[in-house]
Amino acid sequence: MSDTRLWQRLMRLAEIGARGDGGVNRQALSSGEVDAWRLLLTWAEEARLEPSTDAAGNLFLTRPGRDRTLPPALIGSHIDTQPNGGKFDGAFGVLAALEAATDLTTPARDITVVAWMNEEGSRFAPGMMGSEAFIGLRDLAAIRAARDAAGVSVGEALDTLHAAFPDLPHRALGFTPAFYIEPHIEQGPLLEQARLPLGIVTGIQGKITWEITIEGEEGHAGTLDMAKRRDAVMAFARIATRMQRDVGDADPIVKFTIGRVTVQPNAPSVIAGRVTIRIDLRHPDNAALQTYGTRLEAAAQAEAAPCAVTVTRLVDAPSNTFDPDLRDRLTKAADHLGLGAMPILSAAGHDARHMAPLCPSAMIFIPCRGGISHSPEESAEPADVQAGAALLASVVKELTT
Amino acid sequence: MSDTRLWQRLMRLAEIGARGDGGVNRQALSSGEVDAWRLLLTWAEEARLEPSTDAAGNLFLTRPGRDRTLPPALIGSHIDTQPNGGKFDGAFGVLAALEAATDLTTPARDITVVAWMNEEGSRFAPGMMGSEAFIGLRDLAAIRAARDAAGVSVGEALDTLHAAFPDLPHRALGFTPAFYIEPHIEQGPLLEQARLPLGIVTGIQGKITWEITIEGEEGHAGTLDMAKRRDAVMAFARIATRMQRDVGDADPIVKFTIGRVTVQPNAPSVIAGRVTIRIDLRHPDNAALQTYGTRLEAAAQAEAAPCAVTVTRLVDAPSNTFDPDLRDRLTKAADHLGLGAMPILSAAGHDARHMAPLCPSAMIFIPCRGGISHSPEESAEPADVQAGAALLASVVKELTT
Repeated sequence: MSDTRLWQRLMRLAEIGARGDGGVNRQALSSGEVDAWRLLLTWAEEARLEPSTDAAGNLFLTRPGRDRTLPPALIGSHIDTQPNGGKFDGAFGVLAALEAATDLTTPARDITVVAWMNEEGSRFAPGMMGSEAFIGLRDLAAIRAARDAAGVSVGEALDTLHAAFPDLPHRALGFTPAFYIEPHIEQGPLLEQARLPLGIVTGIQGKITWEITIEGEEGHAGTLDMAKRRDAVMAFARIATRMQRDVGDADPIVKFTIGRVTVQPNAPSVIAGRVTIRIDLRHPDNAALQTYGTRLEAAAQAEAAPCAVTVTRLVDAPSNTFDPDLRDRLTKAADHLGLGAMPILSAAGHDARHMAPLCPSAMIFIPCRGGISHSPEESAEPADVQAGAALLASVVKELTT
Repeated sequence: MSDTRLWQRLMRLAEIGARGDGGVNRQALSSGEVDAWRLLLTWAEEARLEPSTDAAGNLFLTRPGRDRTLPPALIGSHIDTQPNGGKFDGAFGVLAALEAATDLTTPARDITVVAWMNEEGSRFAPGMMGSEAFIGLRDLAAIRAARDAAGVSVGEALDTLHAAFPDLPHRALGFTPAFYIEPHIEQGPLLEQARLPLGIVTGIQGKITWEITIEGEEGHAGTLDMAKRRDAVMAFARIATRMQRDVGDADPIVKFTIGRVTVQPNAPSVIAGRVTIRIDLRHPDNAALQTYGTRLEAAAQAEAAPCAVTVTRLVDAPSNTFDPDLRDRLTKAADHLGLGAMPILSAAGHDARHMAPLCPSAMIFIPCRGGISHSPEESAEPADVQAGAALLASVVKELTT
């Protein structure tokens, strides 16, 4: 099945931002994403889809329905990647949706493919900015103010993106779709272990993220007595080990990660004056998520001295449950297509989390090898890619005819 | 005494690379250092000193002596700074030496002022590259291969520096001076506490530096089970706390610092695959230095699992003792000038450490406020600056007439 149009487009899109090691580095609002938009717009034009964008930098490709007054079907995902991302995370969902919109030529209602802005949150944190702005969860001005490590703001990068497409129509930010379905790789090992091509996602596990700043005092590494130091790196090490003990080792289900650590001035012979870290905590049980969150904050306060610490929650998203009727339709459709499917919890966050309160929402998972994602090793089978796209097309057709 | 030429030149030089906060960021082989060379060359020309450089990017300004066959007096320090440096570290020694060479118009032997390349080691590690190459301690090719965080090599930066001064004569790398004296701020609190303007440095405490690389495995922060992770950040936190316990807290004299921590990919929702750190260990007792060094290496090995660790010693320099006769001359001269002086150990490293095996070498310290250096807070009194320069000039005059 590697000769299908969908697979060929996945491989073609992966050439944009390709890394030497088979991975993809196509971060949000980068020049690579501009090139990816251009490619999607070419394919949309071939299929006579109507392209548009909004103030949040989301890209929409719409198959006009017979009655344009009906709320549209919204399907898709994102095309930005982690700096060390793979070929499938996000891209599969957008291209599978493009297949459905391309093949369903005369739907009763509009079918709109969406590529959300900055799902990954690696260049600009936190992620899922496009869907946050779309549902009004976060003010666009606040989103535009976020800056990357080079000091470029989301606002500046967004304006650069839009300037690259002067003829692309702008639509108002946000609308209420008839439903939202997002196909995605599982990013976990369960479907592979069950030898099933499809997962009908029950919900997304809760997540809290923090930025923690540890303020110490700079000094000369060769002269300042240990007893007089306020070393921000050492305070960080104490805080991280305490957090691992109190949370990371406390529960087989919890996921606790310190993925970003920034040290200042980060010079070999200077005692660090400041360390800024990002913490990512996830748990499917909302009560447990809050309990562990409180423990992490307590650990930071307990181990920071003699440094000062500032703890800021960036994201606090409880677990959600996707629409039971939509999940039931997906399960029945998979059965009707003769494709094996199982219910599955999403350990990773997705834009569908934001859409769920707005309209009936669901997700389709396909297996990825070894459960690996956010890595050049990320891999999916052509047959599974095709199965996920077929299930999406089948349910979209059922709901738009 | 803030109206002296020396003080005015210190303030003028501090304008090059000036930070908004009163500090100076003029790192090795930067455009700021090119501008600083240009300024020094102007002052040298006014004083009719002969300028030259060598393949290691050291700058020499020579007052010709009556007998040019005699080995020259070598005096000076460095003009590069830490990214968050101050106005006096290095610059004081070079400008005090320039005063001596300017005022001693007809010496018996050449008096050569030197500004060593990359003493600080913040942009390119390890530091003291110019004096290392000068005495042949390290091969120039190896030094040229070192790269900064942006991937620029010392070789490339050196060639850029030399290209900026096409008319500057190049001399052979390395020669044997009659003696070497380096004036410097103390970078510690002892002179200030003793209320003395001068320290006659007995020696430099030993130092070992390492680069340690912790290799883990990247993974998705929301999906990979804690038990299956090889998180390089968590391994670093365990190693750092173990090192602090086994070495940092074990001895009131030892100085143990992890000043640089580099995390890859350093993305908030990706488990870190690699952490690279720089360790700086100092102790005046050579046996203790080696004992603690061995403990640090053992701690890295003990706490790394399930990550892999690579431990590389970059610098392994024992404590040294400066020339007794030269120290005696300095002590007598201070007394003769009516300036209070005391013997003092240098906790910080200096190029004089490299010169000591080559020729009689010594250092003159002056107080700095609160013992603070490598910081915009770094400060010295005009009277102390003048005292240090007067002591240098007096002993250089005694040894060159």
